Amino acid sequence: MEHPLKVFNSLSRKKEDFIPINPPFAGMYVCGPTVYGDPHLGHARPAITFDIVFRYLQHLGYKVRYIRNITDVGHLENDADEGEDKIAKKALLEQLEPMEVAQYYTNRYHKYMDMLNVLNPSIEPHASGHIPEQIELVQTLLEKGMAYESEGSVYFDVEKYNKTNQYGILSGRNIEEMYSNTRELDGQSDKRNSFDFAIWKNATPSHIMRWKSPWGDGFPGWHLECSAMGAKYLGETFDIHGGGMDLLFPHHESEIAQSVAANGKPPVKYWLHNNMITINGQKMGKSLGNFITLEEFINGSHKLLEQAYSPMTIRFFILQAHYRGTVDFSNQALQASGKAYERLMKAFARLDAIVPAEVSDFNVADLEKDCYDAMNDDFNTPMVIARLFDAVKFINAVADKQTTMSESQKLGLQKIQKNFVQEILGVKPEVQIDSSDSSLGNDLMKLIIELRLKMRQEKNFAMSDFIRDELKKAGIELKDTKEGTDWSKTN
Amino acid sequence: MEHPLKVFNSLSRKKEDFIPINPPFAGMYVCGPTVYGDPHLGHARPAITFDIVFRYLQHLGYKVRYIRNITDVGHLENDADEGEDKIAKKALLEQLEPMEVAQYYTNRYHKYMDMLNVLNPSIEPHASGHIPEQIELVQTLLEKGMAYESEGSVYFDVEKYNKTNQYGILSGRNIEEMYSNTRELDGQSDKRNSFDFAIWKNATPSHIMRWKSPWGDGFPGWHLECSAMGAKYLGETFDIHGGGMDLLFPHHESEIAQSVAANGKPPVKYWLHNNMITINGQKMGKSLGNFITLEEFINGSHKLLEQAYSPMTIRFFILQAHYRGTVDFSNQALQASGKAYERLMKAFARLDAIVPAEVSDFNVADLEKDCYDAMNDDFNTPMVIARLFDAVKFINAVADKQTTMSESQKLGLQKIQKNFVQEILGVKPEVQIDSSDSSLGNDLMKLIIELRLKMRQEKNFAMSDFIRDELKKAGIELKDTKEGTDWSKTN
Repeated sequence: MEHPLKVFNSLSRKKEDFIPINPPFAGMYVCGPTVYGDPHLGHARPAITFDIVFRYLQHLGYKVRYIRNITDVGHLENDADEGEDKIAKKALLEQLEPMEVAQYYTNRYHKYMDMLNVLNPSIEPHASGHIPEQIELVQTLLEKGMAYESEGSVYFDVEKYNKTNQYGILSGRNIEEMYSNTRELDGQSDKRNSFDFAIWKNATPSHIMRWKSPWGDGFPGWHLECSAMGAKYLGETFDIHGGGMDLLFPHHESEIAQSVAANGKPPVKYWLHNNMITINGQKMGKSLGNFITLEEFINGSHKLLEQAYSPMTIRFFILQAHYRGTVDFSNQALQASGKAYERLMKAFARLDAIVPAEVSDFNVADLEKDCYDAMNDDFNTPMVIARLFDAVKFINAVADKQTTMSESQKLGLQKIQKNFVQEILGVKPEVQIDSSDSSLGNDLMKLIIELRLKMRQEKNFAMSDFIRDELKKAGIELKDTKEGTDWSKTN
Repeated sequence: MEHPLKVFNSLSRKKEDFIPINPPFAGMYVCGPTVYGDPHLGHARPAITFDIVFRYLQHLGYKVRYIRNITDVGHLENDADEGEDKIAKKALLEQLEPMEVAQYYTNRYHKYMDMLNVLNPSIEPHASGHIPEQIELVQTLLEKGMAYESEGSVYFDVEKYNKTNQYGILSGRNIEEMYSNTRELDGQSDKRNSFDFAIWKNATPSHIMRWKSPWGDGFPGWHLECSAMGAKYLGETFDIHGGGMDLLFPHHESEIAQSVAANGKPPVKYWLHNNMITINGQKMGKSLGNFITLEEFINGSHKLLEQAYSPMTIRFFILQAHYRGTVDFSNQALQASGKAYERLMKAFARLDAIVPAEVSDFNVADLEKDCYDAMNDDFNTPMVIARLFDAVKFINAVADKQTTMSESQKLGLQKIQKNFVQEILGVKPEVQIDSSDSSLGNDLMKLIIELRLKMRQEKNFAMSDFIRDELKKAGIELKDTKEGTDWSKTN
């Protein structure tokens, strides 16, 4: 691949050239949702972030195998080691079998990811569907002496691992700090050190989601599934592991430790982390009353929302920030994004109707190069968007007869629209909520305008006037300019 | 439940009162797709059939747990015992990891089931996700002496089982027949009898989808997953097991044998089977050139199709036959169904605008009772549809001012529309562009269709074809009929 893509590797804390292990193949693993609640903004950001990575790598020609898991094992609420089982708790509340809860929220997650135009990953493995692989990994860790069994649970021995390796290599934490920062917790007395983490957890009699194991009935530790499934589908070392920054420690740190301890090599070449979202400057949390689901965003039903925001507005808003920066959701910011998104869509919709004329002073090749440079600079989508708005200004100026564009400029901009807006950013037209339907409306109008143009070229003015009159009855006004025909709704 | 629902039980070969084991709960298991190819008519019929059962049981007030599995274990082509692994074969062809193939076709299946308005089941377990449960069942069967290990595979001992039980209880076959009808096959020499079936199959070195087991690396037998997952999510005996009639033997027969041998009780109270589909009177088959995917039906691209058929036309067509009768897909029959479907939708759309007046001679209560009676008679959807057309006639007569209806008649018909058309049959309108803009979309389409007509009248066929092609690109299919031109969305 000729494209000098650079990605910020959380492991080295700097931007590095992206050179996959086995080109043209690229393997990527991203931590997916724990399916015990409705999808919210915290799900949207990593999904969109790594959708961009997936799309861009494919655009560059890589054959990408993208794994995004479903965590449907009944993990515990408190750092996966104690507390209630989240899925079972919800199942109890809703009087369902835990797997019905997991299925329901998996379906909900898929629905909203589709609305946000997030592509399906190549494989979406379920944690509950890979129990043998996880048990095998626990066995390997026991055999290597890097884990110990205690009262039906198996713990990763962080202290021992750290003697020959570095627990903290990703997060920058060190074990001395952890000694002083952690304390012994009730019910944790079966661990040698409070920072040891469960890789297999003994199931109490009331724990519903449980599987047989050499250590008795239980369930795998939270960190284990990603190590097991990543290795199964991408190999012992693969190219990219992504996830939210909140997963960096202890989740990803522990994934590294497990894999290094088991296989003797690091599992991942590039670790990528998206930053967090806030709502009106605050962390999103159920106790703060600012926990807004995607459904509430899209139908505007949450009390903090002044209006509904369409899926494309949410996507566009997320893409207007670099993935490693924080994003603050506020009504003001979203409304601004909604307007910007519409301006972008409208300008590119006007492009097709423009009649090419003299070339003018706008360098499309530069624009294209800048867009690639921005993407190659660690997926700098806000920079891409900023440059696209230069195109918006130019298109609008031509459409408003302030300047002209040549056939080649028009073709170049259409290519940029297809490659960057549509394919890489995954932003598409939507009039109201239902984007597929609204793009249809635009398609119909484009077709009608084209038919009318043809009628006029054939000097069939009766028919051309008929079209104008009929559209007027339907509430649509046509505006003929030298460059083409614009349309707008009159009501 | 007061409703005297009767279902035809394949086990008793007669209609029986439906009395669930643990009301108001009802458990249903239906065999889902093997995900190695695009969804086709053979998937649509059982999915729609048992969608109706699911919807109707819920309508009656049952709390239904509906399990429909995904077969993503690499089963073999020939009766699950020999030949190539179907998913791995496809993976090899498409240069993918087998689970990528399974994921891709699972997503495709979901997409088309959504389009057909088939509800999601409560749980959709994957065979590959339940290996421990399947191994456990094999172990139980070995312990009970009902299975034997041979060269790394484990077979169910049909002859032994049949000494104390009845292998053939569901299909009516008997083991003496099987002796004379089967023969020893090459590569099957590790079986005691040719009719024994694998419950665990040794994986040859080239078999990609494999798991560790006490008998070496291998994979579960085809029949095993349904027994294991049915018992896991619905209990050792549950209410309804559904599937296509082609699965009755050996698949369902063997499921019964496995479960009876393991648990000492029959797994299922009511066995329901939908009949097969044919295409122009022939069995559908790849070698016959009449294998039509749902995508091809919906976009009309298969050479046997005269036009595209919308998802609701396909659903309606399937519902116009009783699920235990055969259904023959022909252009003629589908076109007739499409018209009937539209007539039904149009009439109920007219209902809302009717101004109530004098009561007239149409008995809505009788109609409602007949619809329930039909559903209670083993889900007789064609009878429901026939009675709904009596309502269509009445509504049209009122709308055409030939008679009148009272407020209470109108309310009664609206209730029938909601309960039977929408909720139980799951048939919905599919012409609008979107809810907010539907009139505009329809106006635009009306205009485009009118323009095309004018073009044809002026013998400008190039332009008329251009319109059809451009609409197709926008996802709209035109259908010319004697009465005019209809249109529908293809995606």
